[in-house]
Amino acid sequence: MSVQTLVAPDLLQARVETALRNAGACEASATAAVRALMHASRIGVDSHGVRLVVHYDKVLRGGRVNGTPNITVRKTAAATAIVDGDNALGHHAAYVAMDTAIGLARDSGIGAVGVINSSHFGAAGAYARVAAEAGMIGFATTNSDSVVALFQGREAFHGTNPLAFAAPSVGEKPWLLDMATSSIPLNRLLLYKSLGVQLPQGVAVDEAGAPTTDPASGKTLLPLGGVDFAFKGAALAGVATLLSAILQGMTLDHAFIPMVGGDDYSTPRQMGHFLLAIDPDRFGGRDVFHAGMAAYLAALRSAPAQEGGEILAPGDREWRVEAERLVAGIPVDPDTAAFLELPRSPAGPAGHSKENTAA
Amino acid sequence: MSVQTLVAPDLLQARVETALRNAGACEASATAAVRALMHASRIGVDSHGVRLVVHYDKVLRGGRVNGTPNITVRKTAAATAIVDGDNALGHHAAYVAMDTAIGLARDSGIGAVGVINSSHFGAAGAYARVAAEAGMIGFATTNSDSVVALFQGREAFHGTNPLAFAAPSVGEKPWLLDMATSSIPLNRLLLYKSLGVQLPQGVAVDEAGAPTTDPASGKTLLPLGGVDFAFKGAALAGVATLLSAILQGMTLDHAFIPMVGGDDYSTPRQMGHFLLAIDPDRFGGRDVFHAGMAAYLAALRSAPAQEGGEILAPGDREWRVEAERLVAGIPVDPDTAAFLELPRSPAGPAGHSKENTAA
Repeated sequence: MSVQTLVAPDLLQARVETALRNAGACEASATAAVRALMHASRIGVDSHGVRLVVHYDKVLRGGRVNGTPNITVRKTAAATAIVDGDNALGHHAAYVAMDTAIGLARDSGIGAVGVINSSHFGAAGAYARVAAEAGMIGFATTNSDSVVALFQGREAFHGTNPLAFAAPSVGEKPWLLDMATSSIPLNRLLLYKSLGVQLPQGVAVDEAGAPTTDPASGKTLLPLGGVDFAFKGAALAGVATLLSAILQGMTLDHAFIPMVGGDDYSTPRQMGHFLLAIDPDRFGGRDVFHAGMAAYLAALRSAPAQEGGEILAPGDREWRVEAERLVAGIPVDPDTAAFLELPRSPAGPAGHSKENTAA
Repeated sequence: MSVQTLVAPDLLQARVETALRNAGACEASATAAVRALMHASRIGVDSHGVRLVVHYDKVLRGGRVNGTPNITVRKTAAATAIVDGDNALGHHAAYVAMDTAIGLARDSGIGAVGVINSSHFGAAGAYARVAAEAGMIGFATTNSDSVVALFQGREAFHGTNPLAFAAPSVGEKPWLLDMATSSIPLNRLLLYKSLGVQLPQGVAVDEAGAPTTDPASGKTLLPLGGVDFAFKGAALAGVATLLSAILQGMTLDHAFIPMVGGDDYSTPRQMGHFLLAIDPDRFGGRDVFHAGMAAYLAALRSAPAQEGGEILAPGDREWRVEAERLVAGIPVDPDTAAFLELPRSPAGPAGHSKENTAA
């Protein structure tokens, strides 16, 4: 932690936007990507935050991702549409798709939008929350590169395939779930390896597919549910693949050109996503929804915790981190800080007040 | 197992239907309930199979459930509707709702239906599969009585709140996921208790909310994800509650009159459900979907297994059980067999051929 730089959100956002524009992203694409990356960095999901700008710079310059896409929306029925991303930054295509889903839901009660010809879109929760902020229930998913074993499998098959749901809650930030369908993300496995720290039980398997807590031998992630119940997490990963890839005719998890580590950064990966918005007005009505949500969250937050435990609703932890980071600054790792030419210490030369308060 | 009776599916179905009719269910309600119960019993989900007929008899006679409901469908937008179950057997209301969702999806690309004033609907997968059999992706969920702790909680909060998804696969039974959002169902906890067998890790907590594998002290179920990652399972249970109860203005998990074990079998429980159908024709198209599904399942089923393991797609195990049971008969526990006046041994007096082959 001590080597991370704490950066004021406004400064960080400006630097990321400039970097993306310099790499060839048009204004709309850069704005969308920055919005999604800052969503993740603000709430503490650093794996999907601004550090990805280094990667996006590479794929924009390599040609895999089209910085000046012609994104098109084709309505296919009263409640469905297909967004063709034209190989855009996935964030751009996904925000267009969620906006489309919300519009469809306003007219037809629910809106479902498939995205084709897209690319890595960062954190799925960035899009689900847009629906919640528009007063709707939101859902967003994508498939991704194979890094998770099947139940009783020995090799990577599914991606960490996220499922993100969000719902409005009056007077506070949305209820927000943004979960990988593996127990832990790949980055955490790599971190434990580099630190030599024992893995939690049931999160990884070795070369032979046997569960291991030894970071040296952990090779592939296990689905949510661990050794005994990973068939559930694997099936949920399959839901992401069904909706994002199979329904859209896009690339299956195991067929992706590697996101990183391969030698091809010029061929588009033809990634699909799926976004959904549901309008409470077409069910029990907005007032009923808000009353139910308030009663549910009050009951949940007052439920008795185990010794030393704390009970939180999905999103509570993330919004708390956001409030802290808006004051203290957002931590940025050294490689990303160097890439963005950020000051190297919290009280460094950029001298923004929020950075200084964090020193 | 030795005390269970193996019963030919046709005989079992007829006896269950007669029992429900005798308890006051109209023909449509009885037919729907039998269909859902036989779905579960045929594929091996015995907890949600024909044994529930004893319970339904009680609630039909008690008045909690209305045997002669006037179920109404109100379309609220191009892609949404509300089904008022009039306190019917939940199976009846849920089948009406899924049929409605499929019709909406045919017109509008996706159809979402909320069910209000319903009751226990058995296995969620019974409804998701209907969409798959109509060539669509199906989703079904409900909330249910509190039996599962929150992450770091010490008392029951959510129900086992199932999420069921199904998708068509050409030339074979549907891809089918029907999962509780707890690691194990309550029945399995009770079974381990009665057998005195150690619990798997991460499936239950004791009185103080501490994880335990001691069946004597296991009191409340843990969400999927076990001790370390139960926040994911708890949030997924919340998704079921959001869609089934909060969106529909129906009863929250912790507010239900107990399904069993209380003294009130006359007051309706005002349970909600949520059903969804998605038409592949409005996305990549049916041919694209089927080709993707075939490629996905072929890759999955040929993925290398760990030593002694076997890799299955969701539903593969269930359809295999169904094929076996159609030949060998369906096992029925002694209490249910007595209630249904079934023969007490596989080669008993009812003498149906399929029963005899199972002897």
